[in-house]
Amino acid sequence: MAANTEELKRILGEAADLRAAGAVLRWDQETYMPPGGAGGRAMALSTVSRLAHETFVSDRVGELLETAQAELGGEDPDSDEVRLVKISKRLFDKERKVPGDYVAEFSRVTSLAQQAWQKAKGESNFPHFRPHLERVIELRRQYAEFFAPYDSVYDPLLDDFEPGMKAAQVKTIFTDLRKQQVALVQAIADKGNVIDDRLLYQRFPEDKQLAFGMEIAQRFGFDLNRGRQDLSAHPFTTEFGSGDVRITTCLNPEFLPNGMFGTFHETGHALYGQGIPERYDRTPLAGNLSLAFHESQSRTWENLVGLSRPFWKAFYSRLQSTFPEQLGRVDLETFYRAVNKVTPSLIRTEADEATYNLHVMLRFELELAFLEGSLVAADLPEAWNRRMEEYLGIAPPNDEKGVLQDIHWSLGYIGYFPTYCLGNLVSAQLWEAALEAMPDLAQQIERGEFGGLLAWQRENIHRHGGKFEPMELIVRATGKPLSAEPYLRYLRGKYGEIYGL
Amino acid sequence: MAANTEELKRILGEAADLRAAGAVLRWDQETYMPPGGAGGRAMALSTVSRLAHETFVSDRVGELLETAQAELGGEDPDSDEVRLVKISKRLFDKERKVPGDYVAEFSRVTSLAQQAWQKAKGESNFPHFRPHLERVIELRRQYAEFFAPYDSVYDPLLDDFEPGMKAAQVKTIFTDLRKQQVALVQAIADKGNVIDDRLLYQRFPEDKQLAFGMEIAQRFGFDLNRGRQDLSAHPFTTEFGSGDVRITTCLNPEFLPNGMFGTFHETGHALYGQGIPERYDRTPLAGNLSLAFHESQSRTWENLVGLSRPFWKAFYSRLQSTFPEQLGRVDLETFYRAVNKVTPSLIRTEADEATYNLHVMLRFELELAFLEGSLVAADLPEAWNRRMEEYLGIAPPNDEKGVLQDIHWSLGYIGYFPTYCLGNLVSAQLWEAALEAMPDLAQQIERGEFGGLLAWQRENIHRHGGKFEPMELIVRATGKPLSAEPYLRYLRGKYGEIYGL
Repeated sequence: MAANTEELKRILGEAADLRAAGAVLRWDQETYMPPGGAGGRAMALSTVSRLAHETFVSDRVGELLETAQAELGGEDPDSDEVRLVKISKRLFDKERKVPGDYVAEFSRVTSLAQQAWQKAKGESNFPHFRPHLERVIELRRQYAEFFAPYDSVYDPLLDDFEPGMKAAQVKTIFTDLRKQQVALVQAIADKGNVIDDRLLYQRFPEDKQLAFGMEIAQRFGFDLNRGRQDLSAHPFTTEFGSGDVRITTCLNPEFLPNGMFGTFHETGHALYGQGIPERYDRTPLAGNLSLAFHESQSRTWENLVGLSRPFWKAFYSRLQSTFPEQLGRVDLETFYRAVNKVTPSLIRTEADEATYNLHVMLRFELELAFLEGSLVAADLPEAWNRRMEEYLGIAPPNDEKGVLQDIHWSLGYIGYFPTYCLGNLVSAQLWEAALEAMPDLAQQIERGEFGGLLAWQRENIHRHGGKFEPMELIVRATGKPLSAEPYLRYLRGKYGEIYGL
Repeated sequence: MAANTEELKRILGEAADLRAAGAVLRWDQETYMPPGGAGGRAMALSTVSRLAHETFVSDRVGELLETAQAELGGEDPDSDEVRLVKISKRLFDKERKVPGDYVAEFSRVTSLAQQAWQKAKGESNFPHFRPHLERVIELRRQYAEFFAPYDSVYDPLLDDFEPGMKAAQVKTIFTDLRKQQVALVQAIADKGNVIDDRLLYQRFPEDKQLAFGMEIAQRFGFDLNRGRQDLSAHPFTTEFGSGDVRITTCLNPEFLPNGMFGTFHETGHALYGQGIPERYDRTPLAGNLSLAFHESQSRTWENLVGLSRPFWKAFYSRLQSTFPEQLGRVDLETFYRAVNKVTPSLIRTEADEATYNLHVMLRFELELAFLEGSLVAADLPEAWNRRMEEYLGIAPPNDEKGVLQDIHWSLGYIGYFPTYCLGNLVSAQLWEAALEAMPDLAQQIERGEFGGLLAWQRENIHRHGGKFEPMELIVRATGKPLSAEPYLRYLRGKYGEIYGL
């Protein structure tokens, strides 16, 4: 067995090396690459992606997995080795259905689409992006066909981001959740108690924003020996192994929350990445992470910590001393209420917690529609704007603040958005479990201490890497299956107090 | 033929994609990668390098090259297609002798050695680097064996950087050149006319150094839509295709010339990279460049332009207004003499033109010695210091300023140094040819106009990419074979005037 396992690990390691190389190429594309590099980068990414795929789905890997499964029959089903083989087999069976040429073409098309999106967004010019998006949608439909038959054309795409989840389940969760969130937003609106958040719309110099963000990121536990932060048009986190986990941020010099809470958010992702055991590096156990779980970690640090009163009790004076002119005469309570103001808004990443999920639902519905063919790309801006009007009562003044705001579709990430909403649900459920284990969690945070929370995450989530399926992991971590109730409890508690509901 | 050629180009393109990916990984390693990324990066680079190699030396490429050679028999021997096949065949025959495992191991070892060198240099701690260097030397000797029999163990290594050149030729050129350069340096010393260059050792803020360097780089013709500049421990230029050519610089806030002439130097390399025709992208015609020619381009812009009186007549007032406190009261002639001061110094990259080649000769001799086995790595610092004493009359105070100063050996670049000296010779020979074509070249430069010179380089050098062997290209560009005479004429003319010899 040893020799077979060694060979399997060697090949999986090479596939992981190629994936890491691709991730570095993509990171560079988003941060530092000059415009002239776009064409060559698309080709390089295409070749690297195809080879990663071909390495992973080779006949030899199939044989080695079969042998390993047979040989590991009597072992502890939760051991690293058994899980490695199980996860690898699952991914192998899936990837095996996708031809290498498709992978190369998808990589090439999305690399160019991403460049086109950036330009289109900058110019608020949807027609410039449209042909790229059309090609992406076509390719994603083709992808779904590799997994036919399916219940929904959406299922094979969703499964890449949230293993095992189905569009029908998402629909069920969303239908109930929307009712309750809309009721909450309505109750807040009915109160007529409009919070003044103009204090957030001042000039906040970018260098100071960066410095404050990185100070907090490090306080949270982000290790700069194994990571860094750069600027990009759309913030993201990427991992080239547990020793090199990078975040990016996008600052708005006229609006504080963007960069600040964006940094907290990406830091949450990065803490997860840095918490994956080193021994999982270069294996599928370092990947295969449920995006809902990944998002739960980012939303925990962004919202449950970063938007909480205990956090600002600890750090508001630090923020005031960073921006004395802007915030010196603003008291903590005014600031706390401003950053937690509930109001319909245009940009998902800037939305408050009460309305955020509505942005996600809109995207999910549009994705379903264009995958099923009931909506064509050319009609997307109008469909987007109509739904914004319907769900939030506001319409984007242009496509930059509408259909072009997110990078995801340009990268081919269709089926990704629901994980944001699921991540919110997971974050609240984990938070209740952490609170049960550490009843003084709020007091720790009020003292600026995050070690207890991070240790709880490391122990219950991070150290498992991609070893368990998401619905298995949530039961292990919280003792219960996934439920929307903790999140609704959290929203009602928080906004009930702020708005006096 | 068309189908075969298409297939050949496709495979060569994929090998080029993998090489470009490796170059991005290496660029990132030198500029932005956090320390924790070293281990994973070494593995990724190793896999990518091995695959690039295996792709290029596959049996299929061998067959396709044979077929293409036969089919192209009657074509113009200078056509792109014939040359592509010829160059590819030459590289194929060479690379084919090197096993893929060797390539992977060499990549892994040098990636780690590069990290170790950086740390060792920072701490002036040679023993930290020694075991890595020993392994690199061992691997390079092993490499030479793949090409046995050879005249010198040095030949197969040198050939990678300077196609066709032999150690014996280098020795012959160096022996004569050393005599003449030593005589020149001696004549300068005998004059007793010591130039005061203390004005260069002031505090020059790094942001202003960067801004001035990039202003000149753009004036020279560096296109920021197809390139960029970053900081690294050791300046270098890297190309991911003609659309993405990057330079790095390393600034010394206490000494102006380092960053400034370093930027001019790397810009010279970058202008070459940006001048390669786009149609050569992803083919061996975009690479296979003689390093002596590459270096001739960098030395042209650094020295023949950047250290010339006409250049400073055009730009000195601009430099003064960038650094008014430091240079406001220093006149042009004093500045010109200071940057051209001849004096024995410790650091190759900071050496004046009269002593520079002596630094190269020292390295060449040490490389020969440790490859032949007459010198072991442990004795390198002492051997280095002894030779510095012998050639230049000065001894490094520590290994940071001695044997650890250059990145090359850590990258496995043994056999590279002679190309610096050859590059100087080529630069002067090309300059004489350019002057013949444009007798008013000095006047153009004095007006701050570089378009004529760049156009001459584009026409005579850049547009050919790697199509011609270096000794063929120099005849095409200048009408004569390589000679040291133009360089010696240049040195004698310049320093004769400055020192009144």
